[in-house]
Amino acid sequence: MRNGTNIITEYITLSSKGENEITDITDEVKTKLNESKLKDGIVTIFVVGSTAAITTIEYEPGLQQDFPDMLERIAPKDYRYMHDDTWHDGNGHSHVKASLIGPSLTIPFVESELSLGMWQQIVFLELDTRGRNRKIIVQLIGSK
Amino acid sequence: MRNGTNIITEYITLSSKGENEITDITDEVKTKLNESKLKDGIVTIFVVGSTAAITTIEYEPGLQQDFPDMLERIAPKDYRYMHDDTWHDGNGHSHVKASLIGPSLTIPFVESELSLGMWQQIVFLELDTRGRNRKIIVQLIGSK
Amino acid sequence: MRNGTNIITEYITLSSKGENEITDITDEVKTKLNESKLKDGIVTIFVVGSTAAITTIEYEPGLQQDFPDMLERIAPKDYRYMHDDTWHDGNGHSHVKASLIGPSLTIPFVESELSLGMWQQIVFLELDTRGRNRKIIVQLIGSK
Repeated sequence: MRNGTNIITEYITLSSKGENEITDITDEVKTKLNESKLKDGIVTIFVVGSTAAITTIEYEPGLQQDFPDMLERIAPKDYRYMHDDTWHDGNGHSHVKASLIGPSLTIPFVESELSLGMWQQIVFLELDTRGRNRKIIVQLIGSK
Repeated sequence: MRNGTNIITEYITLSSKGENEITDITDEVKTKLNESKLKDGIVTIFVVGSTAAITTIEYEPGLQQDFPDMLERIAPKDYRYMHDDTWHDGNGHSHVKASLIGPSLTIPFVESELSLGMWQQIVFLELDTRGRNRKIIVQLIGSK
Repeated sequence: MRNGTNIITEYITLSSKGENEITDITDEVKTKLNESKLKDGIVTIFVVGSTAAITTIEYEPGLQQDFPDMLERIAPKDYRYMHDDTWHDGNGHSHVKASLIGPSLTIPFVESELSLGMWQQIVFLELDTRGRNRKIIVQLIGSK
Protein backbone atom coordinates (compact mmCIF):
# COMPACT_ATOMS: atom_id res chain seq x y z
CA MET A 1 0.00 0.00 0.00
CA ARG A 2 1.70 3.20 -1.13
CA ASN A 3 1.55 6.80 -0.05
CA GLY A 4 -1.44 8.33 1.64
CA THR A 5 -0.06 7.69 5.12
CA ASN A 6 -2.01 9.68 7.68
CA ILE A 7 -1.04 10.66 11.20
CA ILE A 8 -3.89 11.38 13.59
CA THR A 9 -3.44 12.36 17.24
CA GLU A 10 -6.25 11.76 19.72
CA TYR A 11 -6.44 11.88 23.51
CA ILE A 12 -8.07 9.95 26.31
CA THR A 13 -8.44 11.79 29.60
CA LEU A 14 -9.50 10.04 32.76
CA SER A 15 -9.61 10.60 36.51
CA SER A 16 -8.24 7.58 38.34
CA LYS A 17 -9.65 6.78 41.77
CA GLY A 18 -6.47 5.56 43.43
CA GLU A 19 -3.48 3.27 43.60
CA ASN A 20 -3.53 0.10 41.52
CA GLU A 21 -6.74 0.95 39.70
CA ILE A 22 -6.72 -0.70 36.26
CA THR A 23 -8.90 0.87 33.56
CA ASP A 24 -9.87 -0.84 30.32
CA ILE A 25 -9.41 1.71 27.52
CA THR A 26 -9.87 -0.71 24.60
CA ASP A 27 -13.25 0.62 23.52
CA GLU A 28 -12.03 4.20 23.48
CA VAL A 29 -9.02 3.24 21.35
CA LYS A 30 -11.34 1.31 18.98
CA THR A 31 -13.60 4.34 18.68
CA LYS A 32 -10.64 6.57 17.78
CA LEU A 33 -9.56 4.01 15.17
CA ASN A 34 -13.07 3.83 13.65
CA GLU A 35 -13.37 7.61 13.53
CA SER A 36 -9.97 7.88 11.80
CA LYS A 37 -11.17 5.77 8.84
CA LEU A 38 -7.64 4.36 8.64
CA LYS A 39 -7.32 0.79 7.39
CA ASP A 40 -3.79 -0.48 8.08
CA GLY A 41 -1.19 0.85 10.44
CA ILE A 42 -0.22 1.23 14.08
CA VAL A 43 -1.68 2.94 17.08
CA THR A 44 0.69 4.13 19.81
CA ILE A 45 -0.84 4.55 23.27
CA PHE A 46 1.32 6.65 25.59
CA VAL A 47 0.57 7.85 29.10
CA VAL A 48 1.98 11.22 30.16
CA GLY A 49 3.63 11.02 33.59
CA SER A 50 6.07 8.83 35.50
CA THR A 51 3.77 6.99 37.96
CA ALA A 52 1.41 5.22 35.55
CA ALA A 53 1.73 2.59 32.84
CA ILE A 54 0.07 1.06 29.77
CA THR A 55 -0.06 -2.67 28.97
CA THR A 56 -2.47 -5.41 27.87
CA ILE A 57 -4.19 -7.90 30.16
CA GLU A 58 -7.26 -10.12 30.23
CA TYR A 59 -9.52 -7.61 31.92
CA GLU A 60 -11.33 -9.57 34.63
CA PRO A 61 -11.57 -9.00 38.41
CA GLY A 62 -9.08 -11.72 39.42
CA LEU A 63 -6.18 -10.37 37.37
CA GLN A 64 -7.06 -6.80 38.37
CA GLN A 65 -5.96 -7.94 41.82
CA ASP A 66 -3.20 -10.42 40.83
CA PHE A 67 -1.23 -8.00 38.67
CA PRO A 68 -0.91 -5.24 41.31
CA ASP A 69 -0.18 -7.95 43.90
CA MET A 70 2.78 -9.15 41.85
CA LEU A 71 4.02 -5.56 41.45
CA GLU A 72 3.75 -5.06 45.22
CA ARG A 73 6.00 -8.11 45.74
CA ILE A 74 8.55 -6.64 43.31
CA ALA A 75 8.42 -3.12 44.75
CA PRO A 76 6.78 -3.15 48.20
CA LYS A 77 5.17 0.06 49.33
CA ASP A 78 6.72 -0.16 52.81
CA TYR A 79 10.27 -0.57 51.53
CA ARG A 80 12.72 2.34 51.90
CA TYR A 81 13.15 4.37 48.70
CA MET A 82 15.75 7.13 48.30
CA HIS A 83 13.16 9.03 46.27
CA ASP A 84 10.95 9.32 49.34
CA ASP A 85 13.87 10.34 51.57
CA THR A 86 14.31 13.37 49.32
CA TRP A 87 10.82 14.27 48.15
CA HIS A 88 8.63 12.83 50.94
CA ASP A 89 5.76 12.07 48.60
CA GLY A 90 5.76 8.38 49.49
CA ASN A 91 5.54 7.14 45.90
CA GLY A 92 9.02 5.74 45.25
CA HIS A 93 7.46 2.33 44.68
CA SER A 94 5.03 3.88 42.14
CA HIS A 95 7.91 5.27 40.09
CA VAL A 96 9.97 2.08 39.90
CA LYS A 97 6.93 0.00 38.92
CA ALA A 98 6.00 2.51 36.20
CA SER A 99 9.54 2.48 34.76
CA LEU A 100 9.54 -1.31 34.71
CA ILE A 101 6.25 -1.73 32.82
CA GLY A 102 6.66 1.34 30.65
CA PRO A 103 4.41 4.18 29.46
CA SER A 104 4.02 3.11 25.83
CA LEU A 105 2.31 0.40 23.78
CA THR A 106 2.20 0.03 19.99
CA ILE A 107 -0.49 -2.14 18.41
CA PRO A 108 -0.93 -2.86 14.70
CA PHE A 109 -4.35 -2.60 13.09
CA VAL A 110 -5.38 -4.38 9.91
CA GLU A 111 -8.47 -3.64 7.81
CA SER A 112 -9.59 -1.21 10.52
CA GLU A 113 -9.43 -3.83 13.29
CA LEU A 114 -7.02 -3.78 16.24
CA SER A 115 -4.87 -6.94 16.32
CA LEU A 116 -5.90 -7.87 19.86
CA GLY A 117 -6.91 -11.29 21.11
CA MET A 118 -10.43 -11.83 22.40
CA TRP A 119 -9.19 -11.88 26.02
CA GLN A 120 -6.57 -9.16 25.56
CA GLN A 121 -7.54 -5.65 26.56
CA ILE A 122 -5.57 -2.39 26.53
CA VAL A 123 -5.31 -1.06 30.07
CA PHE A 124 -4.18 2.03 31.93
CA LEU A 125 -2.62 1.38 35.37
CA GLU A 126 -2.67 4.03 38.04
CA LEU A 127 0.43 3.35 40.14
CA ASP A 128 0.54 6.58 42.15
CA THR A 129 -0.68 6.66 45.74
CA ARG A 130 -3.76 8.76 45.00
CA GLY A 131 -6.25 9.30 42.19
CA ARG A 132 -5.04 11.67 39.49
CA ASN A 133 -6.21 13.32 36.29
CA ARG A 134 -4.45 11.51 33.47
CA LYS A 135 -3.82 12.22 29.81
CA ILE A 136 -3.18 9.40 27.37
CA ILE A 137 -2.06 10.02 23.79
CA VAL A 138 -3.60 7.76 21.13
CA GLN A 139 -1.73 8.36 17.93
CA LEU A 140 -2.65 6.55 14.72
CA ILE A 141 -0.33 6.19 11.75
CA GLY A 142 -1.92 4.41 8.82
CA SER A 143 -3.26 4.31 5.31
CA LYS A 144 -6.85 4.77 4.12
CA MET B 1 13.20 10.80 2.87
CA ARG B 2 9.84 12.10 1.68
CA ASN B 3 6.55 10.50 0.78
CA GLY B 4 6.24 6.96 -0.47
CA THR B 5 5.65 5.53 3.00
CA ASN B 6 4.42 1.96 2.76
CA ILE B 7 2.57 -0.15 5.32
CA ILE B 8 2.88 -3.90 4.96
CA THR B 9 1.29 -6.43 7.30
CA GLU B 10 2.73 -9.92 7.58
CA TYR B 11 2.16 -12.80 10.02
CA ILE B 12 4.18 -15.46 11.78
CA THR B 13 2.24 -18.46 13.03
CA LEU B 14 3.80 -21.04 15.32
CA SER B 15 2.82 -23.90 17.59
CA SER B 16 4.57 -23.62 20.93
CA LYS B 17 5.40 -26.83 22.79
CA GLY B 18 4.77 -25.62 26.32
CA GLU B 19 5.38 -23.24 29.18
CA ASN B 20 8.50 -21.08 29.07
CA GLU B 21 9.47 -22.08 25.56
CA ILE B 22 11.42 -19.26 23.92
CA THR B 23 11.44 -19.12 20.12
CA ASP B 24 13.87 -17.06 18.06
CA ILE B 25 11.84 -15.34 15.31
CA THR B 26 14.60 -13.01 14.09
CA ASP B 27 15.14 -14.78 10.77
CA GLU B 28 11.45 -14.74 9.95
CA VAL B 29 11.23 -11.02 10.68
CA LYS B 30 14.33 -10.42 8.52
CA THR B 31 12.76 -12.38 5.67
CA LYS B 32 9.58 -10.28 5.85
CA LEU B 33 11.72 -7.13 5.80
CA ASN B 34 13.70 -8.32 2.79
CA GLU B 35 10.55 -9.28 0.90
CA SER B 36 9.01 -5.87 1.60
CA LYS B 37 11.85 -4.05 -0.23
CA LEU B 38 11.51 -1.27 2.34
CA LYS B 39 14.67 0.64 3.20
CA ASP B 40 14.07 2.78 6.28
CA GLY B 41 11.34 2.51 8.88
CA ILE B 42 10.03 0.46 11.78
CA VAL B 43 8.75 -3.03 12.25
CA THR B 44 6.22 -3.68 15.01
CA ILE B 45 6.04 -7.26 16.28
CA PHE B 46 2.87 -7.97 18.26
CA VAL B 47 1.64 -11.25 19.72
CA VAL B 48 -2.10 -11.83 19.83
CA GLY B 49 -3.19 -13.13 23.25
CA SER B 50 -2.68 -12.39 26.93
CA THR B 51 -0.38 -15.25 28.02
CA ALA B 52 2.61 -14.69 25.74
CA ALA B 53 5.17 -11.95 25.18
CA ILE B 54 7.73 -10.51 22.75
CA THR B 55 11.16 -9.18 23.71
CA THR B 56 14.83 -9.37 22.70
CA ILE B 57 17.47 -11.60 24.31
CA GLU B 58 20.81 -13.17 23.48
CA TYR B 59 19.40 -16.46 22.23
CA GLU B 60 21.55 -19.14 23.84
CA PRO B 61 20.60 -22.13 26.04
CA GLY B 62 21.70 -20.59 29.36
CA LEU B 63 19.49 -17.51 29.10
CA GLN B 64 16.62 -19.61 27.76
CA GLN B 65 16.60 -21.09 31.26
CA ASP B 66 17.66 -18.00 33.26
CA PHE B 67 14.95 -15.69 31.92
CA PRO B 68 11.99 -18.00 32.74
CA ASP B 69 13.66 -18.75 36.10
CA MET B 70 13.66 -15.05 36.96
CA LEU B 71 10.00 -14.75 35.91
CA GLU B 72 9.12 -17.73 38.11
CA ARG B 73 10.69 -15.94 41.09
CA ILE B 74 8.60 -12.84 40.32
CA ALA B 75 5.37 -14.74 39.73
CA PRO B 76 5.63 -18.28 41.13
CA LYS B 77 3.39 -20.89 39.58
CA ASP B 78 2.37 -22.30 42.98
CA TYR B 79 1.28 -18.93 44.39
CA ARG B 80 -2.44 -18.24 44.84
CA TYR B 81 -3.95 -16.13 42.05
CA MET B 82 -7.51 -14.75 42.14
CA HIS B 83 -7.69 -15.45 38.40
CA ASP B 84 -7.39 -19.17 39.08
CA ASP B 85 -9.95 -19.07 41.89
CA THR B 86 -12.48 -17.85 39.34
CA TRP B 87 -11.49 -19.51 36.08
CA HIS B 88 -9.63 -22.63 37.30
CA ASP B 89 -7.30 -22.69 34.32
CA GLY B 90 -4.20 -22.49 36.50
CA ASN B 91 -2.49 -19.80 34.43
CA GLY B 92 -2.77 -16.70 36.65
CA HIS B 93 1.03 -16.57 36.80
CA SER B 94 1.17 -16.70 32.97
CA HIS B 95 -1.08 -13.64 32.67
CA VAL B 96 0.79 -11.43 35.12
CA LYS B 97 4.16 -12.26 33.54
CA ALA B 98 2.80 -11.50 30.06
CA SER B 99 1.41 -8.13 31.18
CA LEU B 100 4.73 -7.23 32.76
CA ILE B 101 6.89 -7.97 29.70
CA GLY B 102 4.33 -6.84 27.14
CA PRO B 103 3.05 -8.12 23.79
CA SER B 104 4.70 -5.55 21.53
CA LEU B 105 8.15 -4.61 20.27
CA THR B 106 9.09 -1.89 17.76
CA ILE B 107 12.47 -2.05 16.01
CA PRO B 108 13.86 0.47 13.52
CA PHE B 109 15.44 -0.70 10.28
CA VAL B 110 17.94 1.30 8.27
CA GLU B 111 19.02 0.59 4.69
CA SER B 112 17.00 -2.65 4.83
CA GLU B 113 18.81 -3.92 7.95
CA LEU B 114 17.21 -4.46 11.37
CA SER B 115 18.98 -2.36 14.04
CA LEU B 116 19.75 -5.38 16.24
CA GLY B 117 23.04 -6.17 17.94
CA MET B 118 24.92 -9.29 16.97
CA TRP B 119 23.85 -11.04 20.20
CA GLN B 120 20.35 -9.61 20.29
CA GLN B 121 17.56 -11.75 18.90
CA ILE B 122 13.80 -11.16 18.66
CA VAL B 123 12.00 -13.82 20.67
CA PHE B 124 8.50 -15.10 21.31
CA LEU B 125 7.86 -16.37 24.86
CA GLU B 126 5.15 -18.91 25.53
CA LEU B 127 4.03 -18.21 29.10
CA ASP B 128 0.85 -20.29 29.15
CA THR B 129 0.81 -23.69 30.85
CA ARG B 130 0.51 -25.66 27.63
CA GLY B 131 1.57 -25.44 24.01
CA ARG B 132 -0.66 -23.24 21.87
CA ASN B 133 -1.10 -22.11 18.28
CA ARG B 134 0.10 -18.52 18.17
CA LYS B 135 -0.28 -15.66 15.74
CA ILE B 136 2.26 -12.84 15.64
CA ILE B 137 1.73 -9.68 13.59
CA VAL B 138 4.81 -8.30 11.82
CA GLN B 139 3.90 -4.89 10.48
CA LEU B 140 6.38 -2.81 8.53
CA ILE B 141 6.09 0.95 8.01
CA GLY B 142 8.81 2.39 5.83
CA SER B 143 10.04 4.02 2.67
CA LYS B 144 11.48 2.41 -0.47
CA MET C 1 -2.87 15.08 7.91
CA ARG C 2 -2.23 13.43 4.56
CA ASN C 3 0.86 12.30 2.71
CA GLY C 4 4.24 13.83 3.21
CA THR C 5 5.24 11.29 5.85
CA ASN C 6 8.97 11.47 6.47
CA ILE C 7 11.27 8.89 8.03
CA ILE C 8 14.47 10.20 9.57
CA THR C 9 17.07 8.04 11.31
CA GLU C 10 19.42 9.57 13.84
CA TYR C 11 21.84 8.11 16.38
CA ILE C 12 22.98 8.77 19.91
CA THR C 13 26.30 7.28 20.90
CA LEU C 14 27.52 7.26 24.47
CA SER C 15 30.14 5.65 26.66
CA SER C 16 28.61 4.36 29.87
CA LYS C 17 30.76 4.30 32.99
CA GLY C 18 29.47 1.08 34.51
CA GLU C 19 26.68 -1.09 35.84
CA ASN C 20 23.38 0.55 36.68
CA GLU C 21 24.33 3.94 35.29
CA ILE C 22 21.20 5.76 34.13
CA THR C 23 21.63 8.47 31.48
CA ASP C 24 19.03 11.09 30.63
CA ILE C 25 18.84 11.30 26.82
CA THR C 26 15.72 13.48 26.63
CA ASP C 27 17.51 16.61 25.43
CA GLU C 28 19.30 14.75 22.68
CA VAL C 29 16.03 13.24 21.46
CA LYS C 30 14.40 16.70 21.55
CA THR C 31 17.27 18.14 19.53
CA LYS C 32 16.85 15.43 16.86
CA LEU C 33 13.12 16.17 16.76
CA ASN C 34 13.70 19.92 16.38
CA GLU C 35 16.27 19.39 13.63
CA SER C 36 13.88 17.09 11.76
CA LYS C 37 11.27 19.88 11.41
CA LEU C 38 8.60 17.19 11.76
CA LYS C 39 5.35 18.24 13.42
CA ASP C 40 3.30 15.15 14.26
CA GLY C 41 4.39 11.55 14.53
CA ILE C 42 6.35 9.06 16.61
CA VAL C 43 9.93 8.67 17.67
CA THR C 44 11.24 5.18 18.33
CA ILE C 45 14.27 4.95 20.61
CA PHE C 46 16.06 1.59 20.39
CA VAL C 47 19.28 0.48 22.05
CA VAL C 48 21.48 -1.95 20.16
CA GLY C 49 22.63 -4.82 22.41
CA SER C 50 21.20 -7.28 24.91
CA THR C 51 22.48 -5.89 28.23
CA ALA C 52 20.97 -2.39 28.20
CA ALA C 53 17.47 -0.93 28.18
CA ILE C 54 15.40 2.18 27.42
CA THR C 55 12.52 3.47 29.55
CA THR C 56 11.15 6.66 31.12
CA ILE C 57 11.64 7.77 34.72
CA GLU C 58 11.63 10.93 36.81
CA TYR C 59 15.34 11.63 36.51
CA GLU C 60 16.48 12.50 40.03
CA PRO C 61 19.20 10.98 42.24
CA GLY C 62 16.86 8.99 44.51
CA LEU C 63 15.22 7.00 41.72
CA GLN C 64 18.56 6.54 39.98
CA GLN C 65 19.35 4.36 42.98
CA ASP C 66 15.86 2.93 43.67
CA PHE C 67 15.28 1.59 40.18
CA PRO C 68 18.54 -0.45 39.96
CA ASP C 69 17.94 -1.58 43.58
CA MET C 70 14.56 -3.02 42.58
CA LEU C 71 16.13 -4.75 39.57
CA GLU C 72 18.82 -6.24 41.83
CA ARG C 73 16.09 -7.74 44.03
CA ILE C 74 14.44 -9.28 40.95
CA ALA C 75 17.69 -10.56 39.43
CA PRO C 76 20.46 -10.59 42.05
CA LYS C 77 24.01 -10.38 40.76
CA ASP C 78 25.21 -13.17 43.06
CA TYR C 79 22.54 -15.66 41.96
CA ARG C 80 23.57 -18.60 39.79
CA TYR C 81 22.81 -18.07 36.08
CA MET C 82 23.23 -20.81 33.45
CA HIS C 83 24.47 -18.10 31.08
CA ASP C 84 27.49 -17.54 33.31
CA ASP C 85 28.16 -21.26 33.67
CA THR C 86 28.63 -21.39 29.90
CA TRP C 87 30.13 -18.04 28.96
CA HIS C 88 31.83 -16.98 32.23
CA ASP C 89 31.24 -13.29 31.58
CA GLY C 90 29.33 -12.84 34.83
CA ASN C 91 26.49 -10.85 33.30
CA GLY C 92 23.60 -13.30 33.34
CA HIS C 93 21.71 -10.91 35.62
CA SER C 94 22.32 -8.06 33.14
CA HIS C 95 20.71 -10.03 30.31
CA VAL C 96 17.54 -11.04 32.16
CA LYS C 97 16.98 -7.50 33.43
CA ALA C 98 17.45 -6.08 29.91
CA SER C 99 14.96 -8.56 28.42
CA LEU C 100 12.40 -7.70 31.09
CA ILE C 101 12.52 -3.91 30.58
CA GLY C 102 13.08 -4.04 26.85
CA PRO C 103 15.29 -2.20 24.34
CA SER C 104 12.60 -0.07 22.68
CA LEU C 105 10.39 2.90 23.46
CA THR C 106 7.95 4.70 21.15
CA ILE C 107 6.81 8.22 22.02
CA PRO C 108 4.33 10.37 20.07
CA PHE C 109 5.12 13.99 19.29
CA VAL C 110 2.52 16.63 18.54
CA GLU C 111 3.19 20.06 17.03
CA SER C 112 6.93 19.35 17.31
CA GLU C 113 6.76 18.61 21.06
CA LEU C 114 7.43 15.22 22.67
CA SER C 115 4.40 14.03 24.66
CA LEU C 116 6.35 13.64 27.90
CA GLY C 117 5.28 14.79 31.34
CA MET C 118 7.32 17.43 33.14
CA TRP C 119 8.86 14.81 35.47
CA GLN C 120 9.20 12.10 32.84
CA GLN C 121 12.56 11.72 31.15
CA ILE C 122 13.78 9.27 28.50
CA VAL C 123 16.64 7.23 29.94
CA PHE C 124 19.28 4.76 28.85
CA LEU C 125 20.16 2.08 31.42
CA GLU C 126 23.52 0.38 31.37
CA LEU C 127 22.90 -3.07 32.83
CA ASP C 128 26.18 -4.74 31.88
CA THR C 129 28.92 -5.21 34.46
CA ARG C 130 31.27 -2.68 32.93
CA GLY C 131 31.12 0.57 30.98
CA ARG C 132 30.52 0.14 27.28
CA ASN C 133 30.27 2.15 24.07
CA ARG C 134 26.59 2.21 23.18
CA LYS C 135 24.60 3.05 20.06
CA ILE C 136 21.00 4.17 20.31
CA ILE C 137 18.76 4.57 17.24
CA VAL C 138 16.41 7.56 17.27
CA GLN C 139 14.04 7.13 14.38
CA LEU C 140 11.37 9.71 13.61
CA ILE C 141 8.28 9.04 11.49
CA GLY C 142 6.13 12.08 10.99
CA SER C 143 4.59 14.80 8.87
CA LYS C 144 5.84 18.34 8.26
